[in-house]
Amino acid sequence: MLSKQILEDISNSSAIRAMFTEGKKLAQSVGEENVYDYSLGNPVTPVPDEFTQALCDIINTEKDTTKLHGYMDNAGYPEVRETLAAYLNERFLVNLSSRNIIMTVGAAGAINVILKTIIDPGDEMAVFAPYFTEYRNYIGNWRGKLVTIDPNYENFQPDFDDMEKKITPKTKAVIINNPVNPTGVIYSEETIKRIADILSKKEREYGHEIYIISDEPYRELVYDGKETVFLTKYYKNTFVTYSFSKSLSLPGERIGYMVVPDEMADFDTMIAGLTIANRICGFINAPSLMQKAVVKCLHAKTDVEFYNRNRIKLYDGLCKLGFECIKSEGTFYMFMKSPEDDEKAFVERAKKHHIMLVNGTTFGCPGYVRLAYCVDPDMIDRSMPAFEALAKEYNL
Amino acid sequence: MLSKQILEDISNSSAIRAMFTEGKKLAQSVGEENVYDYSLGNPVTPVPDEFTQALCDIINTEKDTTKLHGYMDNAGYPEVRETLAAYLNERFLVNLSSRNIIMTVGAAGAINVILKTIIDPGDEMAVFAPYFTEYRNYIGNWRGKLVTIDPNYENFQPDFDDMEKKITPKTKAVIINNPVNPTGVIYSEETIKRIADILSKKEREYGHEIYIISDEPYRELVYDGKETVFLTKYYKNTFVTYSFSKSLSLPGERIGYMVVPDEMADFDTMIAGLTIANRICGFINAPSLMQKAVVKCLHAKTDVEFYNRNRIKLYDGLCKLGFECIKSEGTFYMFMKSPEDDEKAFVERAKKHHIMLVNGTTFGCPGYVRLAYCVDPDMIDRSMPAFEALAKEYNL
Repeated sequence: MLSKQILEDISNSSAIRAMFTEGKKLAQSVGEENVYDYSLGNPVTPVPDEFTQALCDIINTEKDTTKLHGYMDNAGYPEVRETLAAYLNERFLVNLSSRNIIMTVGAAGAINVILKTIIDPGDEMAVFAPYFTEYRNYIGNWRGKLVTIDPNYENFQPDFDDMEKKITPKTKAVIINNPVNPTGVIYSEETIKRIADILSKKEREYGHEIYIISDEPYRELVYDGKETVFLTKYYKNTFVTYSFSKSLSLPGERIGYMVVPDEMADFDTMIAGLTIANRICGFINAPSLMQKAVVKCLHAKTDVEFYNRNRIKLYDGLCKLGFECIKSEGTFYMFMKSPEDDEKAFVERAKKHHIMLVNGTTFGCPGYVRLAYCVDPDMIDRSMPAFEALAKEYNL
Repeated sequence: MLSKQILEDISNSSAIRAMFTEGKKLAQSVGEENVYDYSLGNPVTPVPDEFTQALCDIINTEKDTTKLHGYMDNAGYPEVRETLAAYLNERFLVNLSSRNIIMTVGAAGAINVILKTIIDPGDEMAVFAPYFTEYRNYIGNWRGKLVTIDPNYENFQPDFDDMEKKITPKTKAVIINNPVNPTGVIYSEETIKRIADILSKKEREYGHEIYIISDEPYRELVYDGKETVFLTKYYKNTFVTYSFSKSLSLPGERIGYMVVPDEMADFDTMIAGLTIANRICGFINAPSLMQKAVVKCLHAKTDVEFYNRNRIKLYDGLCKLGFECIKSEGTFYMFMKSPEDDEKAFVERAKKHHIMLVNGTTFGCPGYVRLAYCVDPDMIDRSMPAFEALAKEYNL
């Protein structure tokens, strides 16, 4: 008597989590140090000290506990949103205020609130392959239809010709993940401009709004001086969603926010809808103490250099062995071409060498695999002989 | 381009919140001390010191911040769930373990996760009038159909004859709120037994499960030595949902849980579905630090006696003036019969005396109004002359 949808969800359930579980099992038989688990995107760097200090300061300073742990506007504490807006204004040269910010239960909460607010059953939601797998589930919650836009396999920016074809009169929104999980690629300013151009043209052609949801939980995890651009500056009907899970290593705390610019069509109605959706979806509001804590350390960051060192070590190591890797510019993920067409067979073969990878089909992109490099750097070193043996099997 | 559903939600949006906003406006013109606002169910008693101490202890003791603020199983930390199970076992003489507990983003999160897991579009969900208004929205999220069961107007227990009629082959579940928001009534053991009997009979007749969702956020706010019974002991296909919002005065922190007993049909599949739904709905997991903190003070309570004194003061005061009140046995709400059939007209008339009430139609029960007595006791005293003037208009 479970719903048909959830029974389907159970059977499709995360290949990522399955691989992680297999890795744990394998570790029991061959020893943890002999398993090279690149499956899970789980932050491993410590929470910045500033955050712990902020938590303590708030608890010790605010003696009115009903203010600290109580209800506030469903959109979040006004002063928290104001502080966040000021920070974003300074950093991205935008012009936001508290009315443009809704605090959310992570980025996952933010996306669901947006989808609840805009999707009528049957609406098409376009995503760029390879895409974060949960988008499929989030869109399914609100009975939207996922449409996949192909990548340009040269650089893993979008295939714009394919995008032109896939945006139809039924398209309600496009979800961008920037930097991209699973490739680690950053969408260039040029890419963002082309996406905006295509959507503006289609909006005029179809006579209704097509929204962008720019999902940016990895915004701070970028390398080589590269940066993502702030989408609201390029396209007015843009929602930006953010989570502190990665930048502050707080994935368990479920604290994030969304930005809705003044230029958004029907701004007031949209904010009313989103605020009500935040309540109705069952989030009610973002966790109160965490709201107050994160805005006290907006300039703090976890040890991004740790991920950077892993990134270079892994990329260099695998390229040297003859694997074809997409250069990761952000996140803690890397995409690699499977040496055989059927990447699921490759994943199985890697497993024989105790290497745990996630197949690209999971992300709507067969022929590739994802490696999460949020791991112990020693594991990368220890895994290289196993990758070497694997490479030999393919005569790389 | 907002969804049709959310546009409807905006226009229906909470009469409760609207009344609160009106009260605030009124306060600006006549002075805060001259407005008697009984509209909002917002905990006002302080968070117990044990909780604040627990928070500090955890932050100071756990030096591995990735364990403190990191991902865990989507169902919550196993040790947190085990502690909670042991507490419930001791208190209610049940036999739960960590596998029976899923930590959630409040009770609102728990209910949405359950509904996502069991509802196919068009399924009927029965609620007992008067009911917590958000049930309508939660059921709407998953495209279920709300069916209302009448109360017995003598004692505001359910009308069992009406219940027999309303449970159809399409009924997927029944939601019980115990103690009841908005009446404050506790469903007696006798009531629970009759509900269980009717559902067991209907399950056999229709050949499929009909679930009970027992929503118990006010479980600790009970008076005169009365208590709620623990539903899983009376009916096997029962989910219990709970929030620490009221017992610990933490409504902003969004921390709660659900209980799924071993006896539940298809237990393993159900747990798999619920755990995945917790992820897919966008909650991912209950806030991590809060999980660890609440189980350190399961025996702590906010100042329940404060609400009790308000309850007695309000009930005695209004009865003396000739109003017909339903005796509140729990929660911080009281239900009162409108002296005229159209309770919305009564609410308007009360407003002229600066008394803010919520009409019963909001809760599916016209002819009555709700008073929330989570207020400053002095406000109750100050409001009595206004109620007296109001009573005179009706010749009570």
